[in-house]
Amino acid sequence: MSIFTGNHILSVSQFDRDAIERVFSVAESMEPYAKRQKRTTVLDGAILGNLFFEPSTRTRVSFGTAFNLLGGEVRETTGMANSALAKGESLYDTARVLSGYSDIIAMRHPAAGSVAEFAEGSRVPVLNGGDGANEHPTQALLDLFTIKRELQFNNKTIDGLHIAMIGDLRYGRTVHSLSKLLCLFKNVRFTLISPKELAMPDYILSAIEDAGHSLKVTDQLEGNMDADICYQTRIQEERFPSQDEANKYRGKFRLNQSIYTRHFQSKTVIMHPLPRDSRMEANELDNDLNLNPNLAIFRQTDNGVLVRMALFALTLGVEDLVSQYEKPVIWYSNKS
Amino acid sequence: MSIFTGNHILSVSQFDRDAIERVFSVAESMEPYAKRQKRTTVLDGAILGNLFFEPSTRTRVSFGTAFNLLGGEVRETTGMANSALAKGESLYDTARVLSGYSDIIAMRHPAAGSVAEFAEGSRVPVLNGGDGANEHPTQALLDLFTIKRELQFNNKTIDGLHIAMIGDLRYGRTVHSLSKLLCLFKNVRFTLISPKELAMPDYILSAIEDAGHSLKVTDQLEGNMDADICYQTRIQEERFPSQDEANKYRGKFRLNQSIYTRHFQSKTVIMHPLPRDSRMEANELDNDLNLNPNLAIFRQTDNGVLVRMALFALTLGVEDLVSQYEKPVIWYSNKS
Amino acid sequence: MSIFTGNHILSVSQFDRDAIERVFSVAESMEPYAKRQKRTTVLDGAILGNLFFEPSTRTRVSFGTAFNLLGGEVRETTGMANSALAKGESLYDTARVLSGYSDIIAMRHPAAGSVAEFAEGSRVPVLNGGDGANEHPTQALLDLFTIKRELQFNNKTIDGLHIAMIGDLRYGRTVHSLSKLLCLFKNVRFTLISPKELAMPDYILSAIEDAGHSLKVTDQLEGNMDADICYQTRIQEERFPSQDEANKYRGKFRLNQSIYTRHFQSKTVIMHPLPRDSRMEANELDNDLNLNPNLAIFRQTDNGVLVRMALFALTLGVEDLVSQYEKPVIWYSNKS
Repeated sequence: MSIFTGNHILSVSQFDRDAIERVFSVAESMEPYAKRQKRTTVLDGAILGNLFFEPSTRTRVSFGTAFNLLGGEVRETTGMANSALAKGESLYDTARVLSGYSDIIAMRHPAAGSVAEFAEGSRVPVLNGGDGANEHPTQALLDLFTIKRELQFNNKTIDGLHIAMIGDLRYGRTVHSLSKLLCLFKNVRFTLISPKELAMPDYILSAIEDAGHSLKVTDQLEGNMDADICYQTRIQEERFPSQDEANKYRGKFRLNQSIYTRHFQSKTVIMHPLPRDSRMEANELDNDLNLNPNLAIFRQTDNGVLVRMALFALTLGVEDLVSQYEKPVIWYSNKS
Repeated sequence: MSIFTGNHILSVSQFDRDAIERVFSVAESMEPYAKRQKRTTVLDGAILGNLFFEPSTRTRVSFGTAFNLLGGEVRETTGMANSALAKGESLYDTARVLSGYSDIIAMRHPAAGSVAEFAEGSRVPVLNGGDGANEHPTQALLDLFTIKRELQFNNKTIDGLHIAMIGDLRYGRTVHSLSKLLCLFKNVRFTLISPKELAMPDYILSAIEDAGHSLKVTDQLEGNMDADICYQTRIQEERFPSQDEANKYRGKFRLNQSIYTRHFQSKTVIMHPLPRDSRMEANELDNDLNLNPNLAIFRQTDNGVLVRMALFALTLGVEDLVSQYEKPVIWYSNKS
Repeated sequence: MSIFTGNHILSVSQFDRDAIERVFSVAESMEPYAKRQKRTTVLDGAILGNLFFEPSTRTRVSFGTAFNLLGGEVRETTGMANSALAKGESLYDTARVLSGYSDIIAMRHPAAGSVAEFAEGSRVPVLNGGDGANEHPTQALLDLFTIKRELQFNNKTIDGLHIAMIGDLRYGRTVHSLSKLLCLFKNVRFTLISPKELAMPDYILSAIEDAGHSLKVTDQLEGNMDADICYQTRIQEERFPSQDEANKYRGKFRLNQSIYTRHFQSKTVIMHPLPRDSRMEANELDNDLNLNPNLAIFRQTDNGVLVRMALFALTLGVEDLVSQYEKPVIWYSNKS
């Protein structure tokens, strides 16, 4: 039992530093199971209701996989077109009914605030898997967890981190949530690089300054690449007034291996919330970076499984029982 | 082994009173598992084919959850747009093939008679999860099971029950099936309240009278609310010739807490097949009833899991083995 | 551990005769589990990523069932409309991410070559479940496995087999792949029966001749029905210039019980990749053949489960451990 047991996970603002460190410590303890070195059945018989009223393959499968890796079962619902919600049922009613069918719920929905409203009717813990422009707390936690792990290789900590955030900082939900979480730590140096039209909102800037962090706002990539972590975001063409503007933007904020070699310090870790669009010629994160060992984007998604396993274990109160229900793994795996 | 073992569940007309009582007795025995007081793995290794050619989130998830709670696995198919059925495959062929992939099948399909036709080709038991306007036997059984349990609180039985059915009694599949099942019991008093255009069909009225039950047909809610059970149905706007007519109807047959307090006897239990539409101002079942302890609508959906667990256990012949495959539940649950 | 362990299954051209015989031998050993005589949990804790970017109910459910029957879990993705792929993500990125969520992947995708491209990014073995007009190796293997088993009843072997292939031999992916596999065996006699416009492609004819097999090409059904196996294919109306042409075709290549009795040798086994279209009057394979014991079409789909179980066991290196994780089956089954 912990402060998490039986509770919802709806927003990054629920977390203080102790809570984050508890999640990360449990997430670390999940690695042998995620790497198939061992099997645990601690959640044998438990059912996850995986409710994705808005599609998101990777978040949905990541939640489901995390639950399976703890020994539980997954009942899934995708789309909303034919659901009772579409026939005018309230989120409260849907929550009352569906929470009768499971032990815990992961939910994504296009409307801001919908997951919290659903949680009020739910009789089991609800994990927010993204509610529109509002919140996506498990993404923010896995981003921060990745930063912690990447820094560890270099004997650094989140306290004292220098992070550069690049691209669309205005509409990018992930950089907002990550910034909020970083405000719980000490002496973080932010370099925010974006076109002026896509600058970080003022309320986030204020929060960063209120936390006593150092802050540099610029629209130039060059000369600003001495960060420990470089968090690149998605280029969204439709944000720009014209194709010319979009092209200019892509020219300025694009990363590839040659730019990395010329401008970055040798250990700068590159992160991105994915997916990245590979249809254009000049991508925000070119494929030639795939061989760069500091490209952490796939470690991010792998870490997502650990963080979600930790949140399931904590909300269902089994975080200290996991290793008591261990078995060996007997099939072939190259994850271990 | 029982009369259920290896057999299909296609229609309420398969059930006599003994069969119903057997289902309900097994359903009662499922409660410790549904409430997560204990875990059973009696169906470990069995596979449910959950075939929803027509969408119905709650029925689909309820079947899947019930099977998981007995230790089985669920393979799911939703929609029909791209299926072999859409390419002209016969229900017989689909059934022959898909029944090779599972131990039991739950199926919903928009066409009346389709599930029975499918069952003829199936090599495993088929449970009808709703075939258009025709049948939805598990809904009828869970409704009757809920009535039995609600009456028990007041030391009453289905024999001697007074039930009021309200609303669209003409097109409402659930009230037809429930009425048929009630004809297997004794001394039931029916009060049927609907606009004349939406009155209960004659063949159901005849069945009620043939069973020796008492029957009152009216279009007035007021003065008719001394029933043990009040079964409200969905308001379907499109049934009415005009918006004015629909509004008049809603004014007359609407239930809310103030109407309940003024007109009902203090223990009248309110049921509804769900979903209820919460978009309109004057709902058939207002949200202010949510705090009324006699509102049984969410107990209905919870009971659905018990009834479906019972039907799975009976058709697969394990109803007496369930407790032999018990384990403790170790995760946090507020269901118990 | 075997040559299969940790490797992808992308094409029939990967298989030599030894490999095929190993797959078939393991598939035979799976029968007690598929028939529910015993249960195995050898893959307890393993996760199949079942990625069907193109719909195919039976192939998808067959893979999922096969994995469940070995004790594993299944996380499923269907459709592509809202996926990251649709937003321009590369198959490489999708593969890197999704392979982090599972131990093995079965994948179907409409584009030829897509599954092999995906496999390059995947960190776990990928089984090709069909990539457009290109390959569907598990279908070819289950077809050949069915031929082997059907011949066994008559004390015959694939070496020395006489097979007739009928219908659309030009576009039918299954007859191409099956022909390639048969080139690994000895003294096979091919009778290829099709309208000239839908004749088998030259490169397959060359392969058959290069293998030293005997070959007869004809557009007449009559007089050519003394084969051990008759592999009928789907009539696809849209291949024909006019309705008249299509009708002529259907008249000529149709099979039903009366044609079977008049023209076939008494033990000729009828196969078909399914689905067959039952909407037309004159079907390529009439329903009146359903009672013919030599109609093997539903044994084909049943055998598909055995072959897929074998491929999972082999790629995950547990083919010799299956029986060590046995339990009795306690529920009712008429499969055994």
